[in-house]
Amino acid sequence: METQRHDVAIVGCGPAGLSAAIYTSRAGLNTVIFGDHTKSSLYKSHAIANYFGFPETVTGYYLARRGVKQAKNFGVKIIPDEIIDIHTNHNGSFALEDSRKKHYIARTVIIATGQSYALSGIKNERELTGKGVSYCVVCDGFFFKNKKVVVIGDGNYAGEEAVRLLNYTKDVTILSHGKEFNFSKEIKKDLKASGIKILETARIKEITGKSRAETLLFADGTEIKVQGVFMAIGSAGATAFAKKLGLEMVNNYIKVDMDGNTGQKGVFAAGDCTGSPAQIATCVGSGCNAALSAINLLKGTRIYIQYN
Amino acid sequence: METQRHDVAIVGCGPAGLSAAIYTSRAGLNTVIFGDHTKSSLYKSHAIANYFGFPETVTGYYLARRGVKQAKNFGVKIIPDEIIDIHTNHNGSFALEDSRKKHYIARTVIIATGQSYALSGIKNERELTGKGVSYCVVCDGFFFKNKKVVVIGDGNYAGEEAVRLLNYTKDVTILSHGKEFNFSKEIKKDLKASGIKILETARIKEITGKSRAETLLFADGTEIKVQGVFMAIGSAGATAFAKKLGLEMVNNYIKVDMDGNTGQKGVFAAGDCTGSPAQIATCVGSGCNAALSAINLLKGTRIYIQYN
Repeated sequence: METQRHDVAIVGCGPAGLSAAIYTSRAGLNTVIFGDHTKSSLYKSHAIANYFGFPETVTGYYLARRGVKQAKNFGVKIIPDEIIDIHTNHNGSFALEDSRKKHYIARTVIIATGQSYALSGIKNERELTGKGVSYCVVCDGFFFKNKKVVVIGDGNYAGEEAVRLLNYTKDVTILSHGKEFNFSKEIKKDLKASGIKILETARIKEITGKSRAETLLFADGTEIKVQGVFMAIGSAGATAFAKKLGLEMVNNYIKVDMDGNTGQKGVFAAGDCTGSPAQIATCVGSGCNAALSAINLLKGTRIYIQYN
Repeated sequence: METQRHDVAIVGCGPAGLSAAIYTSRAGLNTVIFGDHTKSSLYKSHAIANYFGFPETVTGYYLARRGVKQAKNFGVKIIPDEIIDIHTNHNGSFALEDSRKKHYIARTVIIATGQSYALSGIKNERELTGKGVSYCVVCDGFFFKNKKVVVIGDGNYAGEEAVRLLNYTKDVTILSHGKEFNFSKEIKKDLKASGIKILETARIKEITGKSRAETLLFADGTEIKVQGVFMAIGSAGATAFAKKLGLEMVNNYIKVDMDGNTGQKGVFAAGDCTGSPAQIATCVGSGCNAALSAINLLKGTRIYIQYN
């Protein structure tokens, strides 16, 4: 399979990612965005009155579509798929993999994945986080060696997290949490070969347990015993990417300076995943800053990285 | 004369100031902006293609007008005049004075004056800066004791700087640099009483001098000898305000953290005057951040400052 090569890979198609892409593409850098703008927080906003330039109050749907159009005007390629794996190559470039198992190489990466992870909203989730409830297999899988573990989620990210858990335990079950499973062909194939149990379940109402997560209670009255719970609702969050790239985190947010530098060469971050206050204004601004840093790295210093 | 009182006084009517005002006013804070949006860098931009949300490319004129409308929608008061003086009161509030000598009191100040100072573009200006050429009487007036000093500028800020120079020297001349003078009634009155010479001159072509500014050459072929030159083109810049409020500067920019805090309680800064990269995106984002910090100070901690 041919590997696509880009100057800038942006993970996340909200206002931070799109604003960054507008800048890098205008600077002549070959730019790809991974993400589905219809899943961004922006897209779901009903009324936006505080973003400078729109006195008439607009919907997130309207703004997101305009942002996508704008990025495309400058030649940005948008791949509405999830990145499920990322790592640094020996030569300093980055390897990314999407849920269709397609591979990409990029000279720089801008992480703009929004909220660092999606909460499930299940009762006692927050109380038991770190006490048997986790959000990142790469981060915490080690603590669940040979335990009976469930992954909660219905999409590719849940499938990928479950497969990763096999490094630590063979007793892995994915629970759909009241939804229908929606795996890519490739993830489905991986799951089939893995021995992972896949259960379409009712919605999970509550996690119970005194000092640790012990039991899941379903809306249909059934329950199951567990020793570990991995939340994998939605897409991979910043936490997972940060761990894989060795980035410093502060309170589950990627630590960046004012220019969007993460401290790791070639990796920048912007928007809500950096702990900014969930405003379009700040996302657009920090996306611009991260892009200018990437442009400076690639064009200012004229480093040429040989693609591997 | 009655003194107006506001929760938030924003100095500067570009995208940073307007974005900040949209946030503070929506948070229920009584907000005033000082500045003329038609003099902002934004207003003069011919084509803006990189601000998220406008795929059709717009003019600065269009965007600035929309921003003004948006701020006014939320009850922001815009006073299209210059702030020529500012200081901290004993109780922690701030006193501001405009070019009509009107006084204002504010609980917080957001400085969003754009570029830290306006260069004149006169030949050798940069080379002789710090060598007889200066931009701020409060900062450097001391070094010109009893010297023959000129102030270059045609507006209220030039008049105010000239009056301030009288603390250091009696030999002060304002040169109009090829324009017509445009002073407020009050500044005119001050100047009349002051003994300051006011010369409507041709455009200044060049400043000459070996190690220090010595001579001004005019476009009409005339020249004058000087011992000091104060540039006061346009309005008072961030440098002057920063000095008066005791703010830390870095390379002529106001030093701020990611939330727009200057380190001085109640004083925030945003946009180009903080050294951000002169993009609407970053101005709008940093204006939002500074506003959220002001809101947090005034509403979060519920401090009530007794106005003096």
